[in-house]
Amino acid sequence: MEQHRSNSTWRSKLHEIIYEADTPMGKWFDLVLFFMIIVSVILVMLESVKDFDARYHDILLTLEWAITIFFTIEYIARIICIRKPAHYIFSFYGIIDFISTIPLYLSYLVAGSQVFLAVRAFRLLRIFRILKLVQFIGEASQLKTALKASRTKILVFIYVVLILSVIMGTIMYLIESDEAGFTSIPRSIYWTIVTLTTVGYGDIAPQTNIGQFIATVIMILGYGIIAVPTGIVTVEFAKHRGGATDATSDTTVHLNTQSCPTCAVEGHRDGAKYCFNCGSAL
Amino acid sequence: MEQHRSNSTWRSKLHEIIYEADTPMGKWFDLVLFFMIIVSVILVMLESVKDFDARYHDILLTLEWAITIFFTIEYIARIICIRKPAHYIFSFYGIIDFISTIPLYLSYLVAGSQVFLAVRAFRLLRIFRILKLVQFIGEASQLKTALKASRTKILVFIYVVLILSVIMGTIMYLIESDEAGFTSIPRSIYWTIVTLTTVGYGDIAPQTNIGQFIATVIMILGYGIIAVPTGIVTVEFAKHRGGATDATSDTTVHLNTQSCPTCAVEGHRDGAKYCFNCGSAL
Amino acid sequence: MEQHRSNSTWRSKLHEIIYEADTPMGKWFDLVLFFMIIVSVILVMLESVKDFDARYHDILLTLEWAITIFFTIEYIARIICIRKPAHYIFSFYGIIDFISTIPLYLSYLVAGSQVFLAVRAFRLLRIFRILKLVQFIGEASQLKTALKASRTKILVFIYVVLILSVIMGTIMYLIESDEAGFTSIPRSIYWTIVTLTTVGYGDIAPQTNIGQFIATVIMILGYGIIAVPTGIVTVEFAKHRGGATDATSDTTVHLNTQSCPTCAVEGHRDGAKYCFNCGSAL
Amino acid sequence: MEQHRSNSTWRSKLHEIIYEADTPMGKWFDLVLFFMIIVSVILVMLESVKDFDARYHDILLTLEWAITIFFTIEYIARIICIRKPAHYIFSFYGIIDFISTIPLYLSYLVAGSQVFLAVRAFRLLRIFRILKLVQFIGEASQLKTALKASRTKILVFIYVVLILSVIMGTIMYLIESDEAGFTSIPRSIYWTIVTLTTVGYGDIAPQTNIGQFIATVIMILGYGIIAVPTGIVTVEFAKHRGGATDATSDTTVHLNTQSCPTCAVEGHRDGAKYCFNCGSAL
Repeated sequence: MEQHRSNSTWRSKLHEIIYEADTPMGKWFDLVLFFMIIVSVILVMLESVKDFDARYHDILLTLEWAITIFFTIEYIARIICIRKPAHYIFSFYGIIDFISTIPLYLSYLVAGSQVFLAVRAFRLLRIFRILKLVQFIGEASQLKTALKASRTKILVFIYVVLILSVIMGTIMYLIESDEAGFTSIPRSIYWTIVTLTTVGYGDIAPQTNIGQFIATVIMILGYGIIAVPTGIVTVEFAKHRGGATDATSDTTVHLNTQSCPTCAVEGHRDGAKYCFNCGSAL
Repeated sequence: MEQHRSNSTWRSKLHEIIYEADTPMGKWFDLVLFFMIIVSVILVMLESVKDFDARYHDILLTLEWAITIFFTIEYIARIICIRKPAHYIFSFYGIIDFISTIPLYLSYLVAGSQVFLAVRAFRLLRIFRILKLVQFIGEASQLKTALKASRTKILVFIYVVLILSVIMGTIMYLIESDEAGFTSIPRSIYWTIVTLTTVGYGDIAPQTNIGQFIATVIMILGYGIIAVPTGIVTVEFAKHRGGATDATSDTTVHLNTQSCPTCAVEGHRDGAKYCFNCGSAL
Repeated sequence: MEQHRSNSTWRSKLHEIIYEADTPMGKWFDLVLFFMIIVSVILVMLESVKDFDARYHDILLTLEWAITIFFTIEYIARIICIRKPAHYIFSFYGIIDFISTIPLYLSYLVAGSQVFLAVRAFRLLRIFRILKLVQFIGEASQLKTALKASRTKILVFIYVVLILSVIMGTIMYLIESDEAGFTSIPRSIYWTIVTLTTVGYGDIAPQTNIGQFIATVIMILGYGIIAVPTGIVTVEFAKHRGGATDATSDTTVHLNTQSCPTCAVEGHRDGAKYCFNCGSAL
Repeated sequence: MEQHRSNSTWRSKLHEIIYEADTPMGKWFDLVLFFMIIVSVILVMLESVKDFDARYHDILLTLEWAITIFFTIEYIARIICIRKPAHYIFSFYGIIDFISTIPLYLSYLVAGSQVFLAVRAFRLLRIFRILKLVQFIGEASQLKTALKASRTKILVFIYVVLILSVIMGTIMYLIESDEAGFTSIPRSIYWTIVTLTTVGYGDIAPQTNIGQFIATVIMILGYGIIAVPTGIVTVEFAKHRGGATDATSDTTVHLNTQSCPTCAVEGHRDGAKYCFNCGSAL
């Protein structure tokens, strides 16, 4: 019993450091993690630059091993200090953590798996977890609410854009020859989207007069319909903004950075005593 | 009389399945149709990819025949089960249905009509008919109302953009030489629109100093005037949005998916007993 | 006296037809003019297409002569039927009319003036005068008011964009070599504006790592600051819109299409008896 | 004492001319400065055009020397007439003034410092100081306030765009081969930003089908999320605009162009007698 208790205390302490950011130690841990992630992503980038990798291969590899070992320890610690490890392991961040830790080991075990080393760049996604620290999380959630509210309208918009692209792409495929780059309908659709979104690479460009005329129509269309998502999002922003300033009741409840020690769910309200997801004490 | 009656019942049953989406059978039919359309459009795309077509030509052709026969039966069924077939045949969707069913037959009958096979991609337009099923039709109609209200302003905008393009294109034709790609006024206008809409292919690009200076002016102009359609649409959205939340009377009447068995007109109000277009019983 | 009177009546009649659009004859005249302008601009375009011009040179020239003679007669008639011809001749449209009529004559009189033939495309500008006919002139004036109100802000914006382009262009000139296309500071500034406005031709593109990094910064900057003109114009639109619907006093006064027979100034209020510019009777 | 006094008067007079724009002399000085800056920046540009420089090298150099000497005198005068020179020398504009004056001298003293001659283009930044003259400074400050208010939201947006670019760039690096231009992760990220911001140079373009499909996704994403900064800024503009028209108390206090003779801080209110920063008499 005593043993179990001290064990539990030791685990809950570790849990507090790793999963939360309310205590000084927790904040320090997150800061170190933040730094390690940034460094590791820069390493992955530098490795991919052939010249640089050829010159500093040994240094890069050593640093990469150091970071991988750090992340491995962190991953194991995360599993140990949580009461229901499966909840963490199969959560979104649990999978990201695993995927971004494993590649270096795999590259030694499985032949031809070097290509997966780049997967380590996905570590960047882990930063989103740490960002609960930062002050501008409130602003981000405001943006998120507005975007969520305009989700259906934006889907309708994208849907119309896609249908339009298929139809226009097919027409262009019929009009333009292979020489101009319109070799197949999917490729013509690719060109149409490149044009409609005003990206305009120029790797494929219409050569015939009719083709250029239709291209012109697509461009003006694309130039004009960009107004639609902009209009949707702006109105949604205005609404949420207005609601926040006019209304007396603030709709945003302050959430703390605690995470349930049992199921790792986050976003508990300030002063919450039990996890809203699994009911265990926080 | 008996005969006629059972015939009528059988036809009205078929009508319900094919033209409406209120009954389970009707919903199933629309779902199958939706699936067939998507599959057939993907087939058309894959056929156009030379490598793929060379390898799986037989499979693609068999599938295409299956789909074409399905669409043929559907087309005939649509004609049979409606009281005034001409209303359907010459309606927008009737023509689309016909055009997207006929190409495969034509490719065997008429020499050189293979090029029209791509026309089958227009089947995609049929999806819009099925979409009355989907929940976000309300959002789409909101977008449509806003766009309709700002139609005149957007036309004025496009009109000014076109005049500007012709004038600027002519000036660029006078300044730039043939070598830079400004071989004719229409081509210069094409370039101007490519630049003004910020697409910027780069297939034609000014070489002289004055040409590059004017190009710069066109770019900044294009960069700035994109604000105009955006502003128009945003204000229109805001107005309609505001109207929907402030006013007590909801302007959107719930329309069901029924379609008149006589004239195929859609958009009847819930509980409507007679077609608002031809007056026959629903 | 009699003579003078009938002369005056004849002239005022012609004035009504040519300068105004209230009478049936005036409307007909404007319609014919509109058609002639469109045809003439299409002719100018077709002439510039070498293949087409080589094939149909004679037809094009004949048509061009017909149109030029028509415009010449119209120009002379405009001068005759107005009381103060100088007012018309040196007005904006008077100069446009002259410039777009003269090139064909010049091409025979002055050697090497063939290049000025394209100037005839400026005839398109004359369409703006005719457009007082069209219903959407009200919408256009609404747009104009909103744009005028946001003029200063947009100027500040363009000014900042230009300064930014010069600074960024200079930095890119220092970083990138001649091979990448950054041969001079003006050319680097041209590239910066191409990038900032998200046009992106690709005729000049950074090759070095630092150059690509700065290019990235410029792109995100350009992608972000497009929000500024859009925001300005949208707010201005919203304001003018709101004013028009809320307020009981309509700020737009109905202007008729009359034009002063003395000084050719337009935009008189309905029922106005004297020209607001020169005081002579309408 | 007498001596000191006259000295002080002489210095305060110079201070008024150089640092302020309230007196006629001050306005003249600023106008001359404005003209000199514009001329000098044009000179720097022209020098960088090889053909032009080869032809008019002597004239350009002479003019450049004249301007440099003028700026040198101005720089010394600015130091002399201020009570605490260190405040000016290490201020933003003090450093800009120094950096933009020194290059020509350096090019003679230090070998290989010719490349720094382009730094003189930074003189353009000095214009911002002079612009306190111009009327539209009020509009600019309105824009600035709105942008400042939406700063955090825009930072969140840029942050998300960057993470997205790194992830997408890594995926494209894994999919696309070296031949298409995706030679390293940083280069792939560069391409992703080029695509996401709808710039689209076309120097790097995906070749594989999957690559083009993902490119398409990135484009539509980029086309859609441009709505976010636009929405943010528009709402902020609307808020500030509304505040200015609705509220009875105007929030913008009229600031004059005076600058403290002791510490060079600007932006004193009309009628202010003491510097709000260092407390010395104005």
